[in-house]
Amino acid sequence: MVADGGLTHRARDFFHNLQDEICRALEAADGGSKFREDLWDREGGGGGRTRVIEEGRLFEKAGVNFSEVHGDLDPQVASKLPLGDGARFYATGLSLVLHPRSPMVPTVHANFRYLEHGSSGWFGGGTDLTPYYPYLEDAIHFHRTLKLMCDQHDAGYYPRFKKWCDEYFFLKHRNETRGVGGIFFDYLTGAESGGNSGLRSATSGSQASGAGLELVFDFVRGAGRAFLTAYLPIIERRRNEPYSDRERAYQLIRRGRYVEFNLVYDRGTVFGLETRGRAESILMSLPPLARWVYDYRPEPGSPEARALEFFRPRDWLAETDANPPQPA
Amino acid sequence: MVADGGLTHRARDFFHNLQDEICRALEAADGGSKFREDLWDREGGGGGRTRVIEEGRLFEKAGVNFSEVHGDLDPQVASKLPLGDGARFYATGLSLVLHPRSPMVPTVHANFRYLEHGSSGWFGGGTDLTPYYPYLEDAIHFHRTLKLMCDQHDAGYYPRFKKWCDEYFFLKHRNETRGVGGIFFDYLTGAESGGNSGLRSATSGSQASGAGLELVFDFVRGAGRAFLTAYLPIIERRRNEPYSDRERAYQLIRRGRYVEFNLVYDRGTVFGLETRGRAESILMSLPPLARWVYDYRPEPGSPEARALEFFRPRDWLAETDANPPQPA
Repeated sequence: MVADGGLTHRARDFFHNLQDEICRALEAADGGSKFREDLWDREGGGGGRTRVIEEGRLFEKAGVNFSEVHGDLDPQVASKLPLGDGARFYATGLSLVLHPRSPMVPTVHANFRYLEHGSSGWFGGGTDLTPYYPYLEDAIHFHRTLKLMCDQHDAGYYPRFKKWCDEYFFLKHRNETRGVGGIFFDYLTGAESGGNSGLRSATSGSQASGAGLELVFDFVRGAGRAFLTAYLPIIERRRNEPYSDRERAYQLIRRGRYVEFNLVYDRGTVFGLETRGRAESILMSLPPLARWVYDYRPEPGSPEARALEFFRPRDWLAETDANPPQPA
Repeated sequence: MVADGGLTHRARDFFHNLQDEICRALEAADGGSKFREDLWDREGGGGGRTRVIEEGRLFEKAGVNFSEVHGDLDPQVASKLPLGDGARFYATGLSLVLHPRSPMVPTVHANFRYLEHGSSGWFGGGTDLTPYYPYLEDAIHFHRTLKLMCDQHDAGYYPRFKKWCDEYFFLKHRNETRGVGGIFFDYLTGAESGGNSGLRSATSGSQASGAGLELVFDFVRGAGRAFLTAYLPIIERRRNEPYSDRERAYQLIRRGRYVEFNLVYDRGTVFGLETRGRAESILMSLPPLARWVYDYRPEPGSPEARALEFFRPRDWLAETDANPPQPA
């Protein structure tokens, strides 16, 4: 193991406990369902604990996955990693995607992970919100929560990781964002850190510094704990909004975009499938039901047309109620 | 252009006319819908003619696309092509995916294309059948039609292209085939041909021989014309089979696998998105509606369990009614 002071085990334990904490809160929010739990082993090393709700009261599908896997990477997979060396890898993390039934409640994704490849170790992760209809206050709440958390660690984090998120969760072939973004970070080794600021992702294979990586771990713990604070109030605000077949139809089309992103671009999905991860756990992120309509174009001026305009990279925290892109 | 004797133009015209012929037959089969047609231009060079039926009587979604595109490839895309050199490319072809509403009628895909990359030109394509429920006679009819056609060109084609199809349309992460296969071929330059047999795909960048490429074109014409013969009788046999919500639910789950294949593995889809093709035309292959159920497992002994067992690479033409995996 790369990390000093048992960081690998502490990271694993943190993700494992975070899964418990998040699942308890989501069961309470759903108000009717308990997570089904599957323990699984990975051929080649490690395993995981997958938890899923299907056809819940609030969640049409909710998947929260913990895993700790290790072994040897295929050379072509290893060569794609910008850090580390050799074939050995270790990865532990928490990954969740929540698909509410109501199109007025946003879908959300979060992932927090620690990876080692040869002599390098790093953290990655983030969380991003995918509303179907535009509610400015929801986007502001989500981003404000994340910024407050980031600022406790490094004033440069939020702007940098917010931009990274906008760039990452972008469907190039559609020229569309996945939603309103959030934060995304990867390859954080802490190697460049000398203190409580200026951590940067290393892009060379340098050995992680113990102190720097500990600071990154502090940040990842903060991000993991902030998830519920960022998301749960949005559920409570939107869960009783009325909707009709029209909003449901639009939700299914937008879920199709979610599928496109995850299968074409998402590096966690691709890495998981390439390392022969458990397909059912990796693909639990896919929505329960999705629709593709050829050349779908919302009626100009409709709430759906305004929604698509709303989902553009923007500085949410500079938006005011004087300029609110609100639904009809 | 690489090919002699105007082959490039003749290939383009053949695909263009084949689109007309196939669309006429599919409209007649649907019995209620006409194709919507979109003409489009590609930024960078060329364009296409996309035809789609949605919510037809027989076809829930049917897309038949002709395109002729050209320009310069990004270096990283060009480097992935096993034939040719430089940045210049030209591609013309016909691509179709038909999603019937009834789960008793198979989904089908066909694609026939001619590509040039620098000094190399080649044909590729094929057709494969994706039933939801297992009807041995349908698989046999589809494969027999293709074998008869192949044998008119080269006795080695059917076994080779049938195997290639089984290998290509395989979901590694699921350890599942997409359906019962058909034929698949690519990089056929005719460069190794001296006559009417022994054509092989070249894997070096050799200049195509005019005579060899003409023979390949003969074969591709045969394959294109055989499509309707292979598929239409299966529609007629199955379109009046009764089904219930149960079969429809299973169809939607299997369609999810279709989405996974097209977005994760299909080289036409990936090439199209990478070369900034028209996303709506490329993704018209996606089903109108698809479902993902976590860790779906059909009840042992059910028709759905037998269906999954049925969809294994096998020598369909050696199957007999003495050993029929039939639906309930």
